[in-house]
Amino acid sequence: MSDITGGLETSGIGLIKRAIELDRSKRYTESLICYQEGLQLLMQASKATGRSEAGKTALRNKMVEYMDRAEWIKSHIDKEKTTGRYHEQIFIEENSTGFSYESLVSRFLLEKCERVEIDDPYIRSHHQIVNFLKFAELLVKSQCGLRVIKLRTSADTTDHQQQQTKLAEIGSSLATHHVTLHTEFSSSLHDREIRLSNNWTIKIGRGLDYFKPAPGKLAIGAFNYDLRPCRQTTVDIFYKSPP
Amino acid sequence: MSDITGGLETSGIGLIKRAIELDRSKRYTESLICYQEGLQLLMQASKATGRSEAGKTALRNKMVEYMDRAEWIKSHIDKEKTTGRYHEQIFIEENSTGFSYESLVSRFLLEKCERVEIDDPYIRSHHQIVNFLKFAELLVKSQCGLRVIKLRTSADTTDHQQQQTKLAEIGSSLATHHVTLHTEFSSSLHDREIRLSNNWTIKIGRGLDYFKPAPGKLAIGAFNYDLRPCRQTTVDIFYKSPP
Repeated sequence: MSDITGGLETSGIGLIKRAIELDRSKRYTESLICYQEGLQLLMQASKATGRSEAGKTALRNKMVEYMDRAEWIKSHIDKEKTTGRYHEQIFIEENSTGFSYESLVSRFLLEKCERVEIDDPYIRSHHQIVNFLKFAELLVKSQCGLRVIKLRTSADTTDHQQQQTKLAEIGSSLATHHVTLHTEFSSSLHDREIRLSNNWTIKIGRGLDYFKPAPGKLAIGAFNYDLRPCRQTTVDIFYKSPP
Repeated sequence: MSDITGGLETSGIGLIKRAIELDRSKRYTESLICYQEGLQLLMQASKATGRSEAGKTALRNKMVEYMDRAEWIKSHIDKEKTTGRYHEQIFIEENSTGFSYESLVSRFLLEKCERVEIDDPYIRSHHQIVNFLKFAELLVKSQCGLRVIKLRTSADTTDHQQQQTKLAEIGSSLATHHVTLHTEFSSSLHDREIRLSNNWTIKIGRGLDYFKPAPGKLAIGAFNYDLRPCRQTTVDIFYKSPP
């Protein structure tokens, strides 16, 4: 087996292991993606020459098993979605990594999503406004057909003017990408919730502000949020079937 | 057809269109990934109920056509790799977007890669050192089994001490991720080249510094480099078969 094939197989097995873990935690939408991507790599590896017939058969039997499981997950998600009961929970442990906005949300942006409503009382200080910008970048990048972002947050009592200026700057930039930002300040807002117009709702216990600071300005994790340690929080994901 | 299925199909078709474009430009390794991901989405869409029999057949026939093309590309890449002749060229146009380090390089990090050598004469000013850090984050995140990064660059004549301090900070952070950074300063370095120990070489005409500044500190593209306009440059990708 060449190094390349070995590499593909190792990566494929890694993804399948992750899929099984996620499957056990009932994190089905993530698990499905890992199964699919893992199977794709194994499929490529299985076609390589230089493997014994017995080895090929063993690998293929395993692949059939994973495919069956992926099929079950897919139909389970579809069924629960139809009945409007789909619910998935992700528990982010203190100091864990791998939870960038992209890792958390991008799989729900494969479907068309013209409007996103974000309720988060803490989009006030500079780093929180930057969080909001990063989330908006993900929405723009995903090419889900975004037209409107509606942000509801609370007013910064120390410098509301500056908060408004910064959000207006993001709004102007979004406008150049054909997205309208509506901002609303509410003093009675407590819940954090992100509602996508494609019927998915993502509730992050702490809202968008669940990352710890990077260990330094030039440290791994300073820019890539998948490498940033997180604060403990729970993420609930719901699918509400359209009326 | 439900909105969801429609969304899957639209996303799938979008990816296939991109695959065909890349295929025409002989950007095969990227094209293959787009075909595979597009086919996966179409596969899901094709299983949905509510489509006419004629519609199903038409979609499936198209899928078979794309699968054949993806298979041809895969075997073409494999053949050229075996003979050590694989070469792919990406022309990044002035002001174009979608060329983050991740978009450019992550497909070569699915295979095991323990050592990465970077020759780039301009890792000197702060934003260039940040570029290097972002590239290092990508390598760490990819889980390719990275152990060593070797950076060859030229000394900053205005403040070499500060350049060394900043690179040492990145080195300490990499060490906490079990990666050793070797830095070497050369005054005769002209070529830009990134050599991966899994035999892929990526040559970016301008080196890592090919992004334009974002339009503002709180603008779309300030953090996500796929949304940053680029400067014109050419990327050559080679595969050198092991001796």
